[in-house]
Amino acid sequence: MHPDDRPRGEPVLARAARILQSFTPDEPELSVSEIGRRARLHVATASRLIAALIDEGLLTRTAAGKVRIGMRLWELAQRASPTLGLREAAMPFLEDLHAVIGHHVQLGVLDAGEVLFVERLSARDAVVNVTRIAGRLPLHASSAGLVLLAWAPRDLQEQVLAGPLPRFTPATITTPARLRGVLDGIRRQGHVVAEGQIHADATGVAVPVRDGADPASPVVAGLSVIVPNDGRALSLVPALQAAARGITRRLR
Amino acid sequence: MHPDDRPRGEPVLARAARILQSFTPDEPELSVSEIGRRARLHVATASRLIAALIDEGLLTRTAAGKVRIGMRLWELAQRASPTLGLREAAMPFLEDLHAVIGHHVQLGVLDAGEVLFVERLSARDAVVNVTRIAGRLPLHASSAGLVLLAWAPRDLQEQVLAGPLPRFTPATITTPARLRGVLDGIRRQGHVVAEGQIHADATGVAVPVRDGADPASPVVAGLSVIVPNDGRALSLVPALQAAARGITRRLR
Repeated sequence: MHPDDRPRGEPVLARAARILQSFTPDEPELSVSEIGRRARLHVATASRLIAALIDEGLLTRTAAGKVRIGMRLWELAQRASPTLGLREAAMPFLEDLHAVIGHHVQLGVLDAGEVLFVERLSARDAVVNVTRIAGRLPLHASSAGLVLLAWAPRDLQEQVLAGPLPRFTPATITTPARLRGVLDGIRRQGHVVAEGQIHADATGVAVPVRDGADPASPVVAGLSVIVPNDGRALSLVPALQAAARGITRRLR
Repeated sequence: MHPDDRPRGEPVLARAARILQSFTPDEPELSVSEIGRRARLHVATASRLIAALIDEGLLTRTAAGKVRIGMRLWELAQRASPTLGLREAAMPFLEDLHAVIGHHVQLGVLDAGEVLFVERLSARDAVVNVTRIAGRLPLHASSAGLVLLAWAPRDLQEQVLAGPLPRFTPATITTPARLRGVLDGIRRQGHVVAEGQIHADATGVAVPVRDGADPASPVVAGLSVIVPNDGRALSLVPALQAAARGITRRLR
């Protein structure tokens, strides 16, 4: 029997998945003992599984003796990414928006009750922005999230409305009644302008990206830009809507 | 004992890794039996491991009953990507080059004896280009690969020079003597112009990206643009070199 196949009260793959999930963008390199702590595994178990994951190229050992995600894992996740088609369709339009608007442009999808940003072009001197590629934000607090929530399945809407609705700034929507009203407005107007709801100095503007030309086609992503609170946000809606239609056309 | 922990003559993780590697950009969705065939596993074994990987969110089942890479795997590989720092440092400079040159701009790293493209901005109407993000090309045939090879460890250079050197076009470098001469020239001049070596209609221009200001600092990436064969390639070298220096500065 192989050492990593020994029964342990939990399948090998579940333990390996927890090891992979120990890494974060801020701490992409961890020691074996830190991984063991985060993955709730004995050091000996963690050490053995990490060695096996390194053998497969899914993890790699750094010059400093720490461990990080391996190139092979990045490559295979990237190559067959679940959102590759969407990102490839969207990229030229994100680039055009970015060139014209000069601020952060990003594309988010609904995943596990949050918005997951799958693509983003950032500006060096742009207003603050807390997102990054593969970053997540709650649906009620970000412009892309609000757009996704407005057209999300009914039961997810009710679940989010049932709270909690964490506050990021004084402008964050934190009551179900206000959120319900905002979602109604988004469905009526086809866009959202969210000023200072995540960071006091930034306004998010977002529109839905549908997977077909029919106005009732499912919403597959939220397209947003983050600009300063200088009143320009609303004027960007037509450019965003045109880009969203372009992405839809390329998706088909 | 858990079902996926049963001894099988090969560790669970090795089999799981082979399953993950079954997917490609052109075939991101596969049936269980196709995965079993590609991963060289009995259908029953493949089916059980796929179910476990789906439980962990590393794979997902599509509406059509097929299987693909899960959002969680993409997210964790992306978040803690081994090249995240490099890509984040490079992106603004790639965007500037892309805006000015209007053709494909890409960043490749040396991995397992090939160039692995970790970032790329493409142009809708640009000249042909065979690369994509997370795509690979042989070192001897691509401009980014030639730059990486010119400063690669001696034993890797000798291994590539020992061949084989596959031919893509009549212009591909296929003899060790010519490759040796080209690598000498790259080290002397600090750039390469590779015309029609992968596709007859395209020229690649590449420069090295170092991880420090010292000219002897290790080369960590190759920065390249792909343009038509219209004689403009050499004029782009200064813009590429300036961008490479900018990336180096942000890496520090």
